[in-house]
Amino acid sequence: MTQGNIYKSKDLTHLLSSEAKSRQNSPLKEAFRYFKLPGMTFLGGGLPLSDYFPFDKISADIPKPPFTKGIGAPLTEETKTTIEVYKKAGENKANEIELARSLQYGYTEGQPELVAFLKEHTEMIHKVPYEDWDVIASVGNTESWDSTLRTFCSRGDTVLVEEYTFSSALETANGQGVNTVPVAMDEYGIIPRALETLMAQWKGNKPKLLYTIPTGQNPTGSSLSGERRQEIYDIACKYDFIIVEDEPYYFLQMESYTEDKSKREGKHVHGHEEFIKALVPSFVSMDKEGRVIRLDSFSKVLAPGTRIGWIVGQAKLLERYVRLHEVSIQCPSGLAQSVTNSLLYNWGQSGYLDWLIGLRAEYTHKRDVAIDSLKEYFPKEVCSYVPPVAGMFFTVSIDASKHPRFKELGEDPIKVESLIFEQGTKQGTLMIPGSWFKSEGQSTPPQKNLPQNPTQRSHIFFRGTYAAVPLDQLVFGLEKFGKAIKIEFGLS
Amino acid sequence: MTQGNIYKSKDLTHLLSSEAKSRQNSPLKEAFRYFKLPGMTFLGGGLPLSDYFPFDKISADIPKPPFTKGIGAPLTEETKTTIEVYKKAGENKANEIELARSLQYGYTEGQPELVAFLKEHTEMIHKVPYEDWDVIASVGNTESWDSTLRTFCSRGDTVLVEEYTFSSALETANGQGVNTVPVAMDEYGIIPRALETLMAQWKGNKPKLLYTIPTGQNPTGSSLSGERRQEIYDIACKYDFIIVEDEPYYFLQMESYTEDKSKREGKHVHGHEEFIKALVPSFVSMDKEGRVIRLDSFSKVLAPGTRIGWIVGQAKLLERYVRLHEVSIQCPSGLAQSVTNSLLYNWGQSGYLDWLIGLRAEYTHKRDVAIDSLKEYFPKEVCSYVPPVAGMFFTVSIDASKHPRFKELGEDPIKVESLIFEQGTKQGTLMIPGSWFKSEGQSTPPQKNLPQNPTQRSHIFFRGTYAAVPLDQLVFGLEKFGKAIKIEFGLS
Repeated sequence: MTQGNIYKSKDLTHLLSSEAKSRQNSPLKEAFRYFKLPGMTFLGGGLPLSDYFPFDKISADIPKPPFTKGIGAPLTEETKTTIEVYKKAGENKANEIELARSLQYGYTEGQPELVAFLKEHTEMIHKVPYEDWDVIASVGNTESWDSTLRTFCSRGDTVLVEEYTFSSALETANGQGVNTVPVAMDEYGIIPRALETLMAQWKGNKPKLLYTIPTGQNPTGSSLSGERRQEIYDIACKYDFIIVEDEPYYFLQMESYTEDKSKREGKHVHGHEEFIKALVPSFVSMDKEGRVIRLDSFSKVLAPGTRIGWIVGQAKLLERYVRLHEVSIQCPSGLAQSVTNSLLYNWGQSGYLDWLIGLRAEYTHKRDVAIDSLKEYFPKEVCSYVPPVAGMFFTVSIDASKHPRFKELGEDPIKVESLIFEQGTKQGTLMIPGSWFKSEGQSTPPQKNLPQNPTQRSHIFFRGTYAAVPLDQLVFGLEKFGKAIKIEFGLS
Repeated sequence: MTQGNIYKSKDLTHLLSSEAKSRQNSPLKEAFRYFKLPGMTFLGGGLPLSDYFPFDKISADIPKPPFTKGIGAPLTEETKTTIEVYKKAGENKANEIELARSLQYGYTEGQPELVAFLKEHTEMIHKVPYEDWDVIASVGNTESWDSTLRTFCSRGDTVLVEEYTFSSALETANGQGVNTVPVAMDEYGIIPRALETLMAQWKGNKPKLLYTIPTGQNPTGSSLSGERRQEIYDIACKYDFIIVEDEPYYFLQMESYTEDKSKREGKHVHGHEEFIKALVPSFVSMDKEGRVIRLDSFSKVLAPGTRIGWIVGQAKLLERYVRLHEVSIQCPSGLAQSVTNSLLYNWGQSGYLDWLIGLRAEYTHKRDVAIDSLKEYFPKEVCSYVPPVAGMFFTVSIDASKHPRFKELGEDPIKVESLIFEQGTKQGTLMIPGSWFKSEGQSTPPQKNLPQNPTQRSHIFFRGTYAAVPLDQLVFGLEKFGKAIKIEFGLS
């Protein structure tokens, strides 16, 4: 730690759930401290001998930095390299996680080499400003969020969520009997003033935490600015809740949208310093009190199937997660840890940044194609959109009140939404209706004098993605959806 | 399914927890049914393109059946084979899980090929006697048990556990606020009559489930006979609770201990039919009502670090686990699934049985060495033991009342246990004191006319393992521990 780290975290253990508070250390762990005493024969632990692990060596063909032909280019002999992990690490294999170790029990918090890499990466990107932060492994952000709820919330507790959010995250809370209270947002994410008003007017038990997807939000595609984040962070300190930043899309930040195609190329970042500087500041980067829990993952930057995520936060709070993981997931798969770790050390921090820069270029291009198509095919009379600056999603806002049958439909925007959805599938394109993401539960108290929220009242929206489809399909799909809207609104 | 499967399962959904009952399907899943319609451009799902997955090919060196030199023998060119999984499966790769799929989102219940293999294996071994049983993947039995508790128990509910059991399993329940009530056991496991008496005298809310490690029990090393299992199963039907059989050690069943070394070799099983027949019947093999949840895992038969387990049970109940997994772990690592699946299909069901037979031989030999050493080094005057027939553990029962200072120690066996433990570590061996595994919580009501339990009253026990140490260390360790006991009891 060469910089920052000057603040001391606050003791926030009063925010822990009764489940988290009651967890005890295993008495068997006590025995393990004898394990490494000289001359000790340890007949204590039920570990299988690594001789019986049927994997002797694992190899993987991976691309090698600097990925000049793009991160999606097919591998050639020139661009390919092969990593190998052996059951027993040979010499000069300082950062290898040998299979005899990764395939054995142990290291609930993640294999040390992998955690060290992630910690160094976190320090480079976020420069966490307090001392006792740490990193532990998870099996992905969905599990991290599940564990976060179990660590902080008991049945009947309340958490704050974005007005429109990832349905699965709501369902995690719902299953645990945790109430979700929506916070108003506009096309740039949570509105800090709405959050402040909500908290000032709050009655009853205060919320334990705010769950937010600050960058490339799912479903709205919005990204919180650094200024808004700082305001929200200050509100969290004032009202003593935890901010959970679920950040799978953090490295899918892009160049801002430029209408003039000829000027696009010049805007790309290439250098590492420039890249890091261009990233929006995370909540954890402004966390002086240790009240941010950051959920990070390889799912969107390497692959979902690694099932390796990591949690950044105050060491004292993360320790409670480790106790939970000991009696639930234990740790990510050792095969995945060994192979991913070897890839990361083969690339180095620098090569990993090259990869992320490559990712930025890919998504910028996809986003540009999507927005170009919206411009071309969607009727301006009823549609509007903000080009996303991060993530996989874009949303198109539609003024339902302009629908010719709006009155006849009882002035219900949701009915217009259904008609457009159905017409869309009829034309052969599926985008997801915004109402499917509306957080339920107790609603935000009436907000006065707030910036107008375009997703409210007569506006509906649809979520699309440029992530999963080849570019020609994306264009064709949007052309069809634009046509569906035109048909519904009687436009040509 | 060529045989069995003649019974219909009972509807046991009344045993589900409020958490499990409240889980809802994701509305987004609704959208996915449009996904495969012809001509549909799907702009709905936030999936990264597999082009960006940085793993192009994974290979693993594995041993090839029939493992005639033993499953722990170092690989040679002759005994080795290499499996390969590509990002895109080529032709004639019917059972390969290509990386483009395993590294993507999807298949919460486990990749179809892997689940199919496990289901076929389960049918071969257990011949589950009711129709609608199924198999889903987990990330190991610890997580399966955690999910089982969350699926069936709410805070304040009660589960039955063995009087001495795996501490971590107790801690899982404790954290969730679930009470554990011990059931008396002897050196052959749970005493059915004690369970019947306990249930007959039960006051208040009935237990939702019985958690048992029936084979090679941790920590006692005991294994329930087929007869006892049938009696326990009938009690479960009578009192309407679920049996959770946690069976990591099921395939560590061994030949019975034969004192005469010259007669040992002849007792080994070699053929597949003979092997399957020699296995003790599982609870799930006698489950006519669909009230057994079987937790299975590769941890003790391949390697813990695969973090792949599976759950066998009634399809309708397993569906609730899948809903939970969707919002928590999602699924085991795709890397681990692809590689493990390729190993299994490379070996085939037959080769996998060869591996399990090899495992049986290894553990039989280790157990024999351990018991031979107990015979040689442990003082018969105070020690007794039952040679285990399964698992990784053996226990030595010690009559604390014969300790010269027993009276002076207030006739407290636990004090004698501490003295022996300390003397053991002084001599340089660590075995785990039995009291560390004692289940706490509400205790069993006084049991009358029960078979005497040797672990009660003046008897204490220590758990050792022959799994994790090389054989020479095992012998040396037991010699030292025997010496410690002799010193404490003033024997020579």
